[in-house]
Amino acid sequence: MRLALELAIGGQGHVEPNPMVGCVLVKDGSCIGRGYHQSFGGPHAEVNALRSLGTPSEAAGATAYVTLEPCCHHGKTPPCSAALIQAGVARVVVAMRDPFPKVDGGGIRQLRDAGIDVTSDVLKDDAKTLLAPYLKRVQTGVPWVIAKWAMTADGRIATVARQSQWISGPESRRHVHRLRGRVDAIVAGMGTVLADDPMLNARATAADGAESLAPRVAKRVVICRRRLPSRRSKLIRTANEIPTWLFASPRVDPVELASLQQCGAVVFPLDGDDSQAMVRQMLALLGDQDMTNVMIEGGAELLGGFWDPRTGECLVDEFHVYIGAKLFGGVSAPGPIAGEGLGPIELATKLTLHGVDRFADDVRLIYRRVE
Amino acid sequence: MRLALELAIGGQGHVEPNPMVGCVLVKDGSCIGRGYHQSFGGPHAEVNALRSLGTPSEAAGATAYVTLEPCCHHGKTPPCSAALIQAGVARVVVAMRDPFPKVDGGGIRQLRDAGIDVTSDVLKDDAKTLLAPYLKRVQTGVPWVIAKWAMTADGRIATVARQSQWISGPESRRHVHRLRGRVDAIVAGMGTVLADDPMLNARATAADGAESLAPRVAKRVVICRRRLPSRRSKLIRTANEIPTWLFASPRVDPVELASLQQCGAVVFPLDGDDSQAMVRQMLALLGDQDMTNVMIEGGAELLGGFWDPRTGECLVDEFHVYIGAKLFGGVSAPGPIAGEGLGPIELATKLTLHGVDRFADDVRLIYRRVE
Repeated sequence: MRLALELAIGGQGHVEPNPMVGCVLVKDGSCIGRGYHQSFGGPHAEVNALRSLGTPSEAAGATAYVTLEPCCHHGKTPPCSAALIQAGVARVVVAMRDPFPKVDGGGIRQLRDAGIDVTSDVLKDDAKTLLAPYLKRVQTGVPWVIAKWAMTADGRIATVARQSQWISGPESRRHVHRLRGRVDAIVAGMGTVLADDPMLNARATAADGAESLAPRVAKRVVICRRRLPSRRSKLIRTANEIPTWLFASPRVDPVELASLQQCGAVVFPLDGDDSQAMVRQMLALLGDQDMTNVMIEGGAELLGGFWDPRTGECLVDEFHVYIGAKLFGGVSAPGPIAGEGLGPIELATKLTLHGVDRFADDVRLIYRRVE
Repeated sequence: MRLALELAIGGQGHVEPNPMVGCVLVKDGSCIGRGYHQSFGGPHAEVNALRSLGTPSEAAGATAYVTLEPCCHHGKTPPCSAALIQAGVARVVVAMRDPFPKVDGGGIRQLRDAGIDVTSDVLKDDAKTLLAPYLKRVQTGVPWVIAKWAMTADGRIATVARQSQWISGPESRRHVHRLRGRVDAIVAGMGTVLADDPMLNARATAADGAESLAPRVAKRVVICRRRLPSRRSKLIRTANEIPTWLFASPRVDPVELASLQQCGAVVFPLDGDDSQAMVRQMLALLGDQDMTNVMIEGGAELLGGFWDPRTGECLVDEFHVYIGAKLFGGVSAPGPIAGEGLGPIELATKLTLHGVDRFADDVRLIYRRVE
């Protein structure tokens, strides 16, 4: 199952909104086949594992380890439960049940009805960690939210004179582009758009300078509370090539907004101009678009809108914190999360540390929010 | 030599103001003896390595690897150059020359005059890294300055409501006490003393709760610009048991200062009340007391005084940054370094990352300032 979980990660960025799934076939104590769901619309992990066999008949009597309950419905591909039954496997071990309404236990039931021995909940916590973005979207309709920032070793995202380029080094920035290349949307606030005139796309170059294709092109999303991007901004000038979505409060200039639409920007009107309400509505709309992973690029003002200072509620699920080997100092040098902040320490957002990576003198810390 | 460098670390906290030194004796390709300088006033590394031999005559014809040039003067112990000559070693390999004025090449010269083959500068950079605090004190008269702080993953040392306990977990705090137990002084500002009423001592307990003795008792140092600690503070109430030094500007109340002296505090008058000038004068005075390692415990205001915002000059050499798995957020939540800060990004303090350690969900980053 551990191998199947590792295989599953191969589909990250390629399979969404489908879940990442891995499958390993074992017979007489040996691994005879393996596969994972490689791309959206393509064959599922179980089918790829069966296809990896020398001859199809080898599957007879084997045990299939699958990281998620096999599907039992006709979607883009025929049901995997039927494929496993037809192949003659004797036993299926799954890490967890698929809460997707069209499956939700039905795959396990079909296998059992066909006389196959099914064991579930093997390494379930690992599978839940791997599939957290998929599970959140299926269960709540809201995408998984990843906030990324780069700060100095004293927690600043800019100097007191608002200078910020660069805090982290080239290797860190390559990893940021890799993340951008696997998410469905990259979200920025107008402060960042006006200050940095960013492209908000994935420019994936390896250490040797070779360009590589990102798995997906994220929608570029800007929350516009009062101001709008300039028609001369990089975002708007490339809006016809790279999807650019503006989530606009009623307070923006409607004439200017219409002209940006003519430049190729897609406009989503928001109901109000309260930061938190805007964020909440945007996430719901991105969920409606079947998005699984949404990345928040900042700045600090936008990020602050993901917290409710009264309750401490936080709408971000995962944090990628890059720490550059520099110090800025100064009372007025900004930190990564603006807004009112959380006063009583009991309200502080609690995290678990999921990864520590070192890139030259930079460090990347990956956290997830504790529920 | 790598083994000798590892051995040397065993003396950390015990040997200062002497340097940490390790020595390995090699003959016919085998390590036949090893030793390190274990405590101030005790035998040096070379002597301990010679004593580790089965019989003293084994040293004849051997090669001694020493992390620092052997001493050639009668100090607390007889010169090591003489001990090596007398033992009959054929060759001495040293990592670096000792800049201490009474040695400074004299040890190597004596060995060569006795017909011993001497090679120097082997793994010199590693030796310089290990001995940086000693080298700084010998070369400048000023101790090595280590700043330590704990901050959240968004770089805050307290919430907007100024709550801060706790940011890091128990394992991190144990490591802080270990650092406190090996330095010569622990420095705090009056803001921290008034807010936290700290003990500023090393309370070393292992993970199993067992108390262990710290190598040395640091002087507790408070910089008093305008205010003084209360007579009822923990610091003053324990001033007769644990040395407590007050570095006082001319602006503090002289009557109150005298009463604190009567409680056991030692007073060092400072010339002025400019933050940076006070810090500079304090470091010089601590150097006069033969201190090698000085730890700055904060708070943010005191730490800010270690930078010159016009030139970017920084008086801290090493940084121990603990990052707790929490987020506080908020524009007004304080960061670890207050003061004016460095405006132009070219003035930012550049660091090299010397260590990344994980303690449960906390991370400790150790940096040194790039010269």
